[in-house]
Amino acid sequence: MAVKEHTKGRVTIPTDLDVVPETLELLEKWGADAIRDCDGTDYPEELKNVDAKVYSTYYTTRKDNAWAKANPDEIQQMYIMTPFYTAVDEELSIHLMNHLYPDMLKVNDHDDITRWWEVIDRTTGEVVSPELWNYDSDDGDVTIHGAEPFHDYTVSFLAYIMWDPVHMYNAVTNDWKDFEKQITFDVRQPKTHKYSMERLRKFIKDNPHVNVIRYTTFFHQFTLIFDELAREKYVDWYGYSASVSPYILEQFEKEAGYKFRPEYIIDQGYMNNPYRIPSKEFQDFQAFQRREVAKLAKEMVDITHECGKEAMMFLGDHWIGMEPFMDEFKSVGLDAVVGSVGNGATLRLISDIEGVKYTEGRLLPYFFPDTFHEGGDPVKEAKYNWVTARRAILRKPIDRIGYGGYLKLAMQFPEFIDYVESVCDEFRTLYENIKGTTPYCIKKLAVLNCWGKMRAWGNHMVHHAIYHKQNYSYAGVIEALSGAPFDVKFISFDDIRKDPHILDDIDVILNVGDADTAYTGGENWTDEKIVTAVKSFIYNGGGFIGVGEPAGHQYQGHFLQLATVMGVEKETGFTLNVDKYNWEEHDHFIKADCTKEIDFGEGKKSIYALDGAEILVQRDKEVQMAVNEFGRGRCVYISGLPYSFENSRILYRSIIWASHDEENVYKWFSTNFNVEVHAYVKNGKYCVVNNTYEPQNTTVYRGDGSSFNVELEANEIRWYEI
Amino acid sequence: MAVKEHTKGRVTIPTDLDVVPETLELLEKWGADAIRDCDGTDYPEELKNVDAKVYSTYYTTRKDNAWAKANPDEIQQMYIMTPFYTAVDEELSIHLMNHLYPDMLKVNDHDDITRWWEVIDRTTGEVVSPELWNYDSDDGDVTIHGAEPFHDYTVSFLAYIMWDPVHMYNAVTNDWKDFEKQITFDVRQPKTHKYSMERLRKFIKDNPHVNVIRYTTFFHQFTLIFDELAREKYVDWYGYSASVSPYILEQFEKEAGYKFRPEYIIDQGYMNNPYRIPSKEFQDFQAFQRREVAKLAKEMVDITHECGKEAMMFLGDHWIGMEPFMDEFKSVGLDAVVGSVGNGATLRLISDIEGVKYTEGRLLPYFFPDTFHEGGDPVKEAKYNWVTARRAILRKPIDRIGYGGYLKLAMQFPEFIDYVESVCDEFRTLYENIKGTTPYCIKKLAVLNCWGKMRAWGNHMVHHAIYHKQNYSYAGVIEALSGAPFDVKFISFDDIRKDPHILDDIDVILNVGDADTAYTGGENWTDEKIVTAVKSFIYNGGGFIGVGEPAGHQYQGHFLQLATVMGVEKETGFTLNVDKYNWEEHDHFIKADCTKEIDFGEGKKSIYALDGAEILVQRDKEVQMAVNEFGRGRCVYISGLPYSFENSRILYRSIIWASHDEENVYKWFSTNFNVEVHAYVKNGKYCVVNNTYEPQNTTVYRGDGSSFNVELEANEIRWYEI
Repeated sequence: MAVKEHTKGRVTIPTDLDVVPETLELLEKWGADAIRDCDGTDYPEELKNVDAKVYSTYYTTRKDNAWAKANPDEIQQMYIMTPFYTAVDEELSIHLMNHLYPDMLKVNDHDDITRWWEVIDRTTGEVVSPELWNYDSDDGDVTIHGAEPFHDYTVSFLAYIMWDPVHMYNAVTNDWKDFEKQITFDVRQPKTHKYSMERLRKFIKDNPHVNVIRYTTFFHQFTLIFDELAREKYVDWYGYSASVSPYILEQFEKEAGYKFRPEYIIDQGYMNNPYRIPSKEFQDFQAFQRREVAKLAKEMVDITHECGKEAMMFLGDHWIGMEPFMDEFKSVGLDAVVGSVGNGATLRLISDIEGVKYTEGRLLPYFFPDTFHEGGDPVKEAKYNWVTARRAILRKPIDRIGYGGYLKLAMQFPEFIDYVESVCDEFRTLYENIKGTTPYCIKKLAVLNCWGKMRAWGNHMVHHAIYHKQNYSYAGVIEALSGAPFDVKFISFDDIRKDPHILDDIDVILNVGDADTAYTGGENWTDEKIVTAVKSFIYNGGGFIGVGEPAGHQYQGHFLQLATVMGVEKETGFTLNVDKYNWEEHDHFIKADCTKEIDFGEGKKSIYALDGAEILVQRDKEVQMAVNEFGRGRCVYISGLPYSFENSRILYRSIIWASHDEENVYKWFSTNFNVEVHAYVKNGKYCVVNNTYEPQNTTVYRGDGSSFNVELEANEIRWYEI
Repeated sequence: MAVKEHTKGRVTIPTDLDVVPETLELLEKWGADAIRDCDGTDYPEELKNVDAKVYSTYYTTRKDNAWAKANPDEIQQMYIMTPFYTAVDEELSIHLMNHLYPDMLKVNDHDDITRWWEVIDRTTGEVVSPELWNYDSDDGDVTIHGAEPFHDYTVSFLAYIMWDPVHMYNAVTNDWKDFEKQITFDVRQPKTHKYSMERLRKFIKDNPHVNVIRYTTFFHQFTLIFDELAREKYVDWYGYSASVSPYILEQFEKEAGYKFRPEYIIDQGYMNNPYRIPSKEFQDFQAFQRREVAKLAKEMVDITHECGKEAMMFLGDHWIGMEPFMDEFKSVGLDAVVGSVGNGATLRLISDIEGVKYTEGRLLPYFFPDTFHEGGDPVKEAKYNWVTARRAILRKPIDRIGYGGYLKLAMQFPEFIDYVESVCDEFRTLYENIKGTTPYCIKKLAVLNCWGKMRAWGNHMVHHAIYHKQNYSYAGVIEALSGAPFDVKFISFDDIRKDPHILDDIDVILNVGDADTAYTGGENWTDEKIVTAVKSFIYNGGGFIGVGEPAGHQYQGHFLQLATVMGVEKETGFTLNVDKYNWEEHDHFIKADCTKEIDFGEGKKSIYALDGAEILVQRDKEVQMAVNEFGRGRCVYISGLPYSFENSRILYRSIIWASHDEENVYKWFSTNFNVEVHAYVKNGKYCVVNNTYEPQNTTVYRGDGSSFNVELEANEIRWYEI
């Protein structure tokens, strides 16, 4: 067992004017080597010469209301769609700001509303001619004349962002008083572009103590809207709705060669969220934004470097268009990316980024009063966060960890301070042990959906790691993979269309989610190129794991388009006439480590097995898990798989079985699924890690199949030489 | 309280060669006035002059193998589709008879297979040119040449019905030995047509003791297929797949004016089952069949009358094309219809038929060894059947009841014989009390789906009253209505398209089932004529009750196309970004009589309420019941409603609430929902009926709002004067 040492480095802490001695104390105690400010805090004069890197949060798009107010035409905008309104006679008035927080948005009727707005008859899907409606800026209503009674109408319109949504969130959450609401200005537009570059140079010049410009962030906020009660109304961490303006859209039209329509963003009111199968036009728009945003971000990064500073990007807030997994990102030349770590999957969102010198994970809890209050248990949250993140770090490490918020709050919880000390030490040790190597990967997987690498690790993620009843059973698969010994690729249907040979070196394909969503693919499965590539892959020995309603899209006699291959189908009513005799459950390699009834989360109703398929679990005549062979390939169907250690093991065994490798399961393996083994062959090390908060016993198998028993303390990670 | 009398009439009993004295005994005991034979029984010589009507089962399409064998080209045929087969190289062989019972079907390669068969590439949906495939009658395989690797293929082919499916079912169920398998011949074809009319005349002449020709049935069997193990493989009581032959299809082509395709029947392998939204071509075909079948049936009925006999049709077996609720039916001139009664809905399938002199319900259990064996409990089944059917009889009576099967078996259960005696007496009393009148209907309802009156009372019915996990929660609504005091119309989307004014006198519309099925309507909801008619109906004061996924079809920003009106929507992943704050449950008039957690059956997952809707029940943040107002109209959403007395009350109250009539709920009403009140105002009677097997207390409200308490015995029905 390696002895724990007190080491230094790789840790960032927040500070504020009122916590100078505490900051210094923590620098020492946690071995921190960087200090940062946060939204709502200031960097104290006394710490400007401290022996640590200084990060400064830099808001490219806000914290300069003087500029914003002087240039109201360059305030950022977003597309909003009203709710559906039903006409009951020939005139219908729609108040645009209904159910929107009045201080956040201001209707943009400055630009040509007949060109940039759309009134749509949602009963027919047709656009209402601008001649048939008008907007009255006094009462804020669009009135449709000659409406069809009992048709539904919506208005898609542009609104200025008069209060930055994250600033608003922080203000509301912390109950800030006496502050100015920060307006979001648009660096993409000409005057603000020029001004922003000067503003950046001035900031760097005025803050010589700062080493790292922590961009928070670049130019466009993910979609975040509040209702009239200042409650969150709509949030999409991936949403592009707030990255628009006539200035930008005219550029887009020029590049794309076709006319822009608000509907490309509005998307029937679904607001281009990642569950939607993206239209070609929306994908064109994203590509355009990626190029333009990268170009402009590079300008700022170049200035940063020219001024002798590092450029770090926060992966959040105004990050839209940056897309760290896409090619344009590397061209920006950033030194670092920092992001919030909610779980293993969000850790990989950061640590898998290429083209930067280092990555940093901001661990939870954030030092905000929602956790750090009397009766709060920040240690519990921190433990959960660290142990969850650690699984993923062991597969693909971030280079640094850090914390954010009000340090004063954290200092009131000495147990928390102590616990984080141990986290910092543990992180440094593991980083030392695994740096520069790729951990041993047992299989190569491809998660197949409409997004591919652009949404790598972000599948089924609405707003970072927030729970949703409708997707935790799918997000659990991604979370399990984030810390599992597999080389995971995220590929799109377009990738296969471009080159079916990308499947050649894949062991197992996964397709996870509900039918007709972007995560399973919907009508992509009516494309014979896709179907034949995947079936041929399986027939020739590949594995396929479908979770939920994989390949689900009603077409040509099947709901699940791979039904005959997976051996399962969904009863939609269309096959109630078919007698179903295959209901017997079977023992199986995949279930060998199960200790209890398998938790399929929300599971799926009405799945039945075809003849020949082997049912692993059915409940009340609804199949939850089944396997089927097709040619030399193997398929596993699972109805849902929320994240847990036991379910991670089920997924692990599914992958091993699907790739015909049962005889090698006892390699770099722990018999107790609460404990995991990670090998770093190049560095000659491996670790055994207890993911639980209790001691665990297990038998550990090395890569050569030899084994030994071990007892681990709660949370313990133990390092060995190979 | 009316005194129970021993009366006579309105009852039919079965007989056989070996139960002559028993038959006579039962004639007396049950007060029967008609005797029948059954499949597998014979009518005894000794009973030919008995004082009772004699029914004789008459098989128009079987029980004459000599004819069938002499005319093999006129044996009936059916369309069959093979399973999906995946090509793995350029040649694919498909054995047509795989998984089919070999003695039942014989591939028809006598007719031009290039014209009447279809090989379909199910990956593309395209028909494979007959030049690219051939059929080898020696090995029974279709071989496709030049198949696309990893495409799926099916073959749709014609097969002769060499063993009548019902004859086979009866033989297998009763383990018959030493019998000849009856071949099904096709009365529609010229030689058999001519022969059949002569055969009928001869039968009548040879059987002068027979009073009623009980046609079992006319010409085409509902779809019923058995697998290689003689197990039921596919059953659709409404299926038209076995009503085809090149002879018939050529006639159809002439009438329709376009070329027939097997796919019109095969329908991607879904075999035209009623959950499928019917294509125009299939509806054309059904209309053609109705006309042709009615014409031919009329010929037989005319002969029957000419010979001085009554013509009765059995509603089952070869009933396809007769469609008793459609206009052609009346033209046949039948005297009577008899059908099997599985529950209230199947009772109404019979009793709602117009254009015949009388209807008869064959009650359960059938006297077959599956119930009448040592340890069997036929009384229990009989009680359940009678009490269930009685609810519906009290709304719309059949004119007679009867039993079928082997009388010898029933005689071994004296308690059963006694119980049926009481049923017969009770039936005669209630018939006497309600005859010639329409019971008081509180509201007028329209059940809206793709089928309208053609599938009246048969919604969500796969094979009569058989349970299916995926539809009992919907069938329960129809069952509840079958015995409820409402005037129920079944209307189709086409009916509304033809004349939206059909909604004018409706109080409440119901739409019940899963999305994208014929029972909810699917893409019909993208037709503005439908949407505006229904919304206008509701807005102007109409009620709407949606069960399951009413108006469910993904289109223009909604999954439930009436979401804004019903106030509920389904989370499909596309609105996870939308914050949902409306979760509070409310007390409500509709729930006022509930005694426990409401049983929604399978319920629905992921339904949420829009702002303004009032949630009556949500479970774990999934709405199971909610109400919403739209204009002057009211909507009720229910996730599912299996049949029970408590749920019937919930539906009752939903209807009353949706039609704004809460103040009149206490009229012809029982406070205890296990007891129901039916008023026959014209006859000056009303009854109070205990639907349970235990005594019940209740307060009964008369039509004027006055009330009294009453105690009822188990199952008791008590009659009062108004």
